[in-house]
Amino acid sequence: MNDLDNIRHSLAHLLAAAVLKKFPKAKLGIGPTIENGFYYDFLLPRNLTPEDLKEFEKTIKWLITQNLPFSGKKVTPATAKKTFEDQLFKLDLIKEFTKDKKPLSIYYTGKEFFDLCRGGHVKNTSEINPDAFKLTHIAGAYWRGSEKNPQLQRIYGLAFTTKKELEEYLKMQEEAKKRDHREIGKKQKLFIFDDLIGSGLPLWLPNGTIIKNEIEKFAVEMEEKYGYRRVATPHIAKQKLFETSGHLPYYADSMFPPMKLDDGNYYLKAMNCPLHHLIYKSEPRSYRDLPLRFAEYGTVYRNELSGTLAGLLRVRMLSMNDAHIYCRADQIEEEFKKVMELTIQYFGVFGLKNYSFRLSLWDPKNKKKYINEPKNWKMAEDILRNVLKNLGVKFTEVKNEAAFYGPKVDIQYKSVGGREETMSTIQLDFAAKKRFDLIYHDKDGKENDEVFVIHRAPLSTHERFIAYLIEHYAGEWPTWLAPSQVKILPVSEKFSSYGEKVLSELKQNSIRAEISEANETLGKRIRETEIEKVPYTLVVGEREMKDENVNVRKRGKKETETISLQSFIAKIAAEIHERK
Amino acid sequence: MNDLDNIRHSLAHLLAAAVLKKFPKAKLGIGPTIENGFYYDFLLPRNLTPEDLKEFEKTIKWLITQNLPFSGKKVTPATAKKTFEDQLFKLDLIKEFTKDKKPLSIYYTGKEFFDLCRGGHVKNTSEINPDAFKLTHIAGAYWRGSEKNPQLQRIYGLAFTTKKELEEYLKMQEEAKKRDHREIGKKQKLFIFDDLIGSGLPLWLPNGTIIKNEIEKFAVEMEEKYGYRRVATPHIAKQKLFETSGHLPYYADSMFPPMKLDDGNYYLKAMNCPLHHLIYKSEPRSYRDLPLRFAEYGTVYRNELSGTLAGLLRVRMLSMNDAHIYCRADQIEEEFKKVMELTIQYFGVFGLKNYSFRLSLWDPKNKKKYINEPKNWKMAEDILRNVLKNLGVKFTEVKNEAAFYGPKVDIQYKSVGGREETMSTIQLDFAAKKRFDLIYHDKDGKENDEVFVIHRAPLSTHERFIAYLIEHYAGEWPTWLAPSQVKILPVSEKFSSYGEKVLSELKQNSIRAEISEANETLGKRIRETEIEKVPYTLVVGEREMKDENVNVRKRGKKETETISLQSFIAKIAAEIHERK
Repeated sequence: MNDLDNIRHSLAHLLAAAVLKKFPKAKLGIGPTIENGFYYDFLLPRNLTPEDLKEFEKTIKWLITQNLPFSGKKVTPATAKKTFEDQLFKLDLIKEFTKDKKPLSIYYTGKEFFDLCRGGHVKNTSEINPDAFKLTHIAGAYWRGSEKNPQLQRIYGLAFTTKKELEEYLKMQEEAKKRDHREIGKKQKLFIFDDLIGSGLPLWLPNGTIIKNEIEKFAVEMEEKYGYRRVATPHIAKQKLFETSGHLPYYADSMFPPMKLDDGNYYLKAMNCPLHHLIYKSEPRSYRDLPLRFAEYGTVYRNELSGTLAGLLRVRMLSMNDAHIYCRADQIEEEFKKVMELTIQYFGVFGLKNYSFRLSLWDPKNKKKYINEPKNWKMAEDILRNVLKNLGVKFTEVKNEAAFYGPKVDIQYKSVGGREETMSTIQLDFAAKKRFDLIYHDKDGKENDEVFVIHRAPLSTHERFIAYLIEHYAGEWPTWLAPSQVKILPVSEKFSSYGEKVLSELKQNSIRAEISEANETLGKRIRETEIEKVPYTLVVGEREMKDENVNVRKRGKKETETISLQSFIAKIAAEIHERK
Repeated sequence: MNDLDNIRHSLAHLLAAAVLKKFPKAKLGIGPTIENGFYYDFLLPRNLTPEDLKEFEKTIKWLITQNLPFSGKKVTPATAKKTFEDQLFKLDLIKEFTKDKKPLSIYYTGKEFFDLCRGGHVKNTSEINPDAFKLTHIAGAYWRGSEKNPQLQRIYGLAFTTKKELEEYLKMQEEAKKRDHREIGKKQKLFIFDDLIGSGLPLWLPNGTIIKNEIEKFAVEMEEKYGYRRVATPHIAKQKLFETSGHLPYYADSMFPPMKLDDGNYYLKAMNCPLHHLIYKSEPRSYRDLPLRFAEYGTVYRNELSGTLAGLLRVRMLSMNDAHIYCRADQIEEEFKKVMELTIQYFGVFGLKNYSFRLSLWDPKNKKKYINEPKNWKMAEDILRNVLKNLGVKFTEVKNEAAFYGPKVDIQYKSVGGREETMSTIQLDFAAKKRFDLIYHDKDGKENDEVFVIHRAPLSTHERFIAYLIEHYAGEWPTWLAPSQVKILPVSEKFSSYGEKVLSELKQNSIRAEISEANETLGKRIRETEIEKVPYTLVVGEREMKDENVNVRKRGKKETETISLQSFIAKIAAEIHERK
């Protein structure tokens, strides 16, 4: 254990001491260190309140100032049992340790408090900074995690070496909370969940639907430029399709259960690829037709356990920025490069910077895990590595992390809260061709079965990506994505009709605008608009009306400027067009 | 029976006589008249060929010229049995008729042929026009429609009074076949069905997806102008939602079977309304917030029997141009009027003319069928009638055809083939407010539970509407919908690069264009473009390249004109913008 861990562990003991001071009959569970702090479980005569935590904090601070020494000693099971005879949970532990032939020791903090403990403490409470810890919250926890056992109250604490570290951590937490996509989603009326609908199934409200549709429009436009052709496939398909693709029976647990119709079992799709493969096969393809790129914001369904669902980050119905590229061996490099470029361009528009690439390779020794086409593995891995090198992007290589059907590039994203997650992957697939008999006709008319498939979804799913974006922007949407782009504030009712005129001109130019009627003071309405994080506020009064001007205030800025309505429209339209 | 029926019935007998002439051991089934003609079922020693039909036609014509009289007589069961002793199917019928105490009679055609028959014939074959009938095709049919019985060969025939009528009918059939949405869908690569996906689940190919997306884009634009706000709802929801809406258990047979997840039963939605109601309820609504219009190309699922599915006209997953308008009683008229206007505007853009409106009313005596709110029925029906009258549209009124929850206006569409079908309906709903506790806050802050809901889907579903449009346009898509809007034909390879330049400029202007390389003669390529029904063909050669011109040929026109590339772009861009 390092010093900080010792401090945290010691604080857990001090917490138990403080609790026992207030509740002498309290039964003690365990009190380990955790990331950033510690906790301790107690069985208490009543439910704790936030006030109790404050009182415990005070007691701990006082105990710290008493310069209490920590000291431990080994004991026999008999002594241990005797020492903790009125602590049922400790007796439970003593029984278990004895059975497992583990040593038993007791640690004293000063003279009064002692605990069954393996050690790892400061020598003296004077080593603990009384301003660098904080008790944060209470949660319920079953003894040993089992519902069959009594439920205890768990007190969580944070602890650092210095006050500054504690403050910084609290600030980061505050920031993460402010950016919590569920909170912002609710506040900005982006989406809701409803018990009548069920878990993991968001309903997109008008504001959220605007964002979702703008992202999709952007994707359609970009992918059109990159030569993708859009398709649309059903959400259900027969069992046989997923047997052909190999999802059944191996992936059955993650899929929704089948629905029996008069002509067989149907499944909600968990992947779009098998359906795109059928489109590939719908007509003979020549070497000249390749590459073929089929794109679809395809909806897939995953049978997640209800308890694991979390806001938009883990849902049961996902709309994926999906596409499959069918190409010849000699086209892989160019196609993979283009997908990488598209991805980088996408991230650039959203201002996402904390990402890196990870090249996941096979392990030739692991015959079971990977398709046995060594030549294709060699070729494909070399190509992917080359593409990454030539693009000059940061990337790491990981062995034995490829997909069953080929190597892949994962895009690792580090969120504002510090989580690193795989945002999306670009996968090369040389198994599909055999499963679905994908072929093309060569120059000489012969059938060639070396059709390579690239799976890609740079923008992840609408659900996940919008959750990331909410956090990323902290709800301050760039103009092109903002559900409401402009708020018009007439200074008084006298200028309502000019306000309406401004509104109508903005709408004619496809700008999303609203009017905030003059039934509140201007100051109050300006503050409201700030809270709603609308990108532009237009104040219109006597002078503006006279000159067909608007007084523009940009979100987050104090200064305003008065310009003509037409120049404002030109300015914001350009901003939207450039997706800023 | 009228004269034409007598002719058709008599021709069925003549067909049987002709068949017996060629196959003396043929076993005869039944030979009734049908719409436009007749058929007769036979058990024969071998499968018939089209040549056989021609031979039977010849024989029938010869029989007609023999001026054979038809004559019938009643017989006893015993005589009947004796007469048809080697005709097992006739014996079957005799047995049944005897059991049911029905009279038996035998009809003679001339002297040789006779049949068990209730009569209804011409007096003499001379009354039949030998040039006004035609044997059309052969199909398999089980005796008495049961798979347990032997399969017979059914010969179909058409028959009219005059040759002209026959020819006109054949021409209409030819036209309908040319417009068959399944044929055109295949030819133009719009959509496919695949056995691995299952019945009633089209896969939209790139060309079909373009049409689908253009229609949706149009709807989004129009509905935005009409003040709709877009939402997006999940495709699955818990059982409880559909119990609340009343779809379960009454509508269960039409829904897909439930899927049991860890937190209960989930259903694929059969309707979007319950989900929109939850969005309405997601925040308190004031009288000032109404009307609220939520729109979504919502996908719903219907568990149709596989045998009833027909191309795009009857599918299992439907993307509906759906919306729900929530309004106060005093807003119904205005809202209904706007929906009617929107519908008429929609149909105008597509050039659909063969439609009319049908006002479906309740029956106050039918207490079981309708929600018991007589005042609302009276008010709502009066309002709907007024709207129809004031708009000056053609409409009929039908009693006892309303929905359970309110009156509706059906839009009846007559297809090119002459079918009349309900394209879509506009329904007023005063049951939803109770089922879902829909309320708003009145001026005085009090809760008001008189929230009226309008259900509307003027553009039907993508599937059904595109089937109609294919028929309507016979595959000749207007420019804005055409998957490929322009085909560029370089006169020879020398002008390929200019062709590419033209292509790139068109694409930059969001015009869907393709190049047809000069590896075939120009004439052949022009013909191909005509077959593909591309709206514009641009021929580019020496002169065009020199002057940056294009030689434009509009689909279906012989004359061409040479104009500058820029004026062509301006012209076609305007056409697309105006949705022509």
